[in-house]
Amino acid sequence: MGDATYAKGLEGVIAAESEICLINGAEGKLYYRGYSIEDLAKSSTFEEITYLLLYEKLPTESELSSFQNKMRKSRPIDTVVQNMITQFPEKGSPMELLQSVITYLSSTVSHTIHHSDKCNCRDTLHQIAQLATVLAMYQRVREGKSYVAPREDLSHGANFLYMMRGEEPDPAEGAIMDKCLILHAEHGFNASTFTARVVASTLSTCYCSISAAVGALYGSLHGGANERVLDMVDAIGSLDNVESWIDKAMAEHKKVMGIGHRVYKAKDPRATVIEEYLKTLSENKGDSFYLDMLTKIEATVNDRMKAEGKLLFPNVDFFSGAVYSLLGIPRDLFTPIFAISRVSGWLTHILEQRKDNRIYRPKCLYEGPQGQSFVPIEDR
Amino acid sequence: MGDATYAKGLEGVIAAESEICLINGAEGKLYYRGYSIEDLAKSSTFEEITYLLLYEKLPTESELSSFQNKMRKSRPIDTVVQNMITQFPEKGSPMELLQSVITYLSSTVSHTIHHSDKCNCRDTLHQIAQLATVLAMYQRVREGKSYVAPREDLSHGANFLYMMRGEEPDPAEGAIMDKCLILHAEHGFNASTFTARVVASTLSTCYCSISAAVGALYGSLHGGANERVLDMVDAIGSLDNVESWIDKAMAEHKKVMGIGHRVYKAKDPRATVIEEYLKTLSENKGDSFYLDMLTKIEATVNDRMKAEGKLLFPNVDFFSGAVYSLLGIPRDLFTPIFAISRVSGWLTHILEQRKDNRIYRPKCLYEGPQGQSFVPIEDR
Repeated sequence: MGDATYAKGLEGVIAAESEICLINGAEGKLYYRGYSIEDLAKSSTFEEITYLLLYEKLPTESELSSFQNKMRKSRPIDTVVQNMITQFPEKGSPMELLQSVITYLSSTVSHTIHHSDKCNCRDTLHQIAQLATVLAMYQRVREGKSYVAPREDLSHGANFLYMMRGEEPDPAEGAIMDKCLILHAEHGFNASTFTARVVASTLSTCYCSISAAVGALYGSLHGGANERVLDMVDAIGSLDNVESWIDKAMAEHKKVMGIGHRVYKAKDPRATVIEEYLKTLSENKGDSFYLDMLTKIEATVNDRMKAEGKLLFPNVDFFSGAVYSLLGIPRDLFTPIFAISRVSGWLTHILEQRKDNRIYRPKCLYEGPQGQSFVPIEDR
Repeated sequence: MGDATYAKGLEGVIAAESEICLINGAEGKLYYRGYSIEDLAKSSTFEEITYLLLYEKLPTESELSSFQNKMRKSRPIDTVVQNMITQFPEKGSPMELLQSVITYLSSTVSHTIHHSDKCNCRDTLHQIAQLATVLAMYQRVREGKSYVAPREDLSHGANFLYMMRGEEPDPAEGAIMDKCLILHAEHGFNASTFTARVVASTLSTCYCSISAAVGALYGSLHGGANERVLDMVDAIGSLDNVESWIDKAMAEHKKVMGIGHRVYKAKDPRATVIEEYLKTLSENKGDSFYLDMLTKIEATVNDRMKAEGKLLFPNVDFFSGAVYSLLGIPRDLFTPIFAISRVSGWLTHILEQRKDNRIYRPKCLYEGPQGQSFVPIEDR
């Protein structure tokens, strides 16, 4: 093996150069193509930032209009895909369904360029647009309802809520859903994005690479943190229990879900943004249970940490689950929603990988048995 | 980024320790769990080597019988999976179908342990057993024929031919098919196996991890070499053309497909084994076209290389396509067949990854724009 070093989990190893996403964990900053997440969340849409990611620049009005038009026309799903959703066994997970659907629907799309470094997927956009449709239909089917075809006059986020509910959301809710998709669209290298790039590095298709990334996001070490935040809130149950629950958790060295982040040592900038959405929704809905609970959990954690001279900040997952809940989204759709947003980032990384590709082929260090003699089965 | 070094494609980087497969490229040796591939191909079966890979030892008679029984009972596919195959659009690739099916069928299987380092997949074995069934049914459906249910009295390879053809293969053909599955079941780290491990490292399910690996194998830089060998043979057309074709290819620095190997600097041991199967089949079928062509191609290449003082050896792909063709298997099923064999290796790596897991999370080196100011769309 020569002088190669072994870094478990490839920790600290640089796997590629990238021009997509910059995370400044020390200062709590996140940029897509150099634009701060705060600016994008304030002034942009999910479709516009998808354009920004894929085309490396903000679109002009006519570029955005043409891009939006293509992406919206790609929303409806084919009958064979609808059948997959209708027939999907009840005990299956929506993440398994999404992973499965993406490669299947590939064959329903007119994309002629397979296995190539040049791909027309920036034109077809089905692999981005249709995930939301699939997920909305899945939710309706398990409620015993039927497919609601997408509308072309709604933003990606608002249309998702429309397809799921069967009625148009109020504009504030539609806008918040769309902005949540902006916040989750990209976050540099992580296991799912890395998976997408590894698969893309073989010159497999975009669809196959994105499907693989969904599989990685499904893992409990990757997606699912916002679900667990709400599970924690449920377990605490009421404001009166917060302090004793946190004290017990800290004494037992249990993690308080959604607080602290591997990368951000200052406040996750997405958390600041999404906390505002939670406040708006709580007020509009007249339901501040989650907001009050989360606020008290954060305050209690930091009160206790102060004693140790440390500060911990909530991350985006701390608030996103509460936002989705107030939008009427069931908990097991939170990670799939992460996927319908992050797919823009995955596709961007896939295209970047192909621009200057080398297949990912690390080595392993063999530590197993050697020189075994085959013994006939009757003599074992 | 500190002192981390950047190795494109992770070349030379050790990503994990492993006890599964040893490749000695210099001497042309390949071992599964310490047993040489020649011994295994000679004396074992695909089911037995799957046991060896998964359980880290050769089974006793009763262990093998119980394992075989479980694996064979897992062969039949559920109606919802059959529907996916029947409805799969014609222009789709069987690799896309396989990738899609694996996560879908997960929800038809009683495997209760998701997202865990402990998994009951060594007991269910659907993710290994059913891929062959799916592929055989796919082939029948596109020939306008119907599903042939698997038989429990045939080896994995013979049963695949039976399900595809609708009639039992002669024993020699069944045995050769089964041995081809042995030869391809495992080959250390490569892009698909690495993909399986990356996805598994998030604690995603076996099914999701295997599906992702299929996506990587689909890439033209990974699977498909044996198809291209036969395309080359077709392009050459006849024995008389071999020398001039090779001379032209070499003058143009074109790769002669199936000759030479990134890892093996001596003869790929699998090539030696599979060449014998090709000889047997050619004789049994009275059709030596491929054998004659391949033999002359190899001889011509080495005659020309000798002048340069080099020797190049055929690899397993050089012969496997011809073997599959003589078994009546269409060319676009070659890579899917690779998958129905390699799935045993993938599952083994997934389980090994979980035993001492750390999520794969390399870094990237950000080279993109910084500090962009958001300009309103009307001012762009």
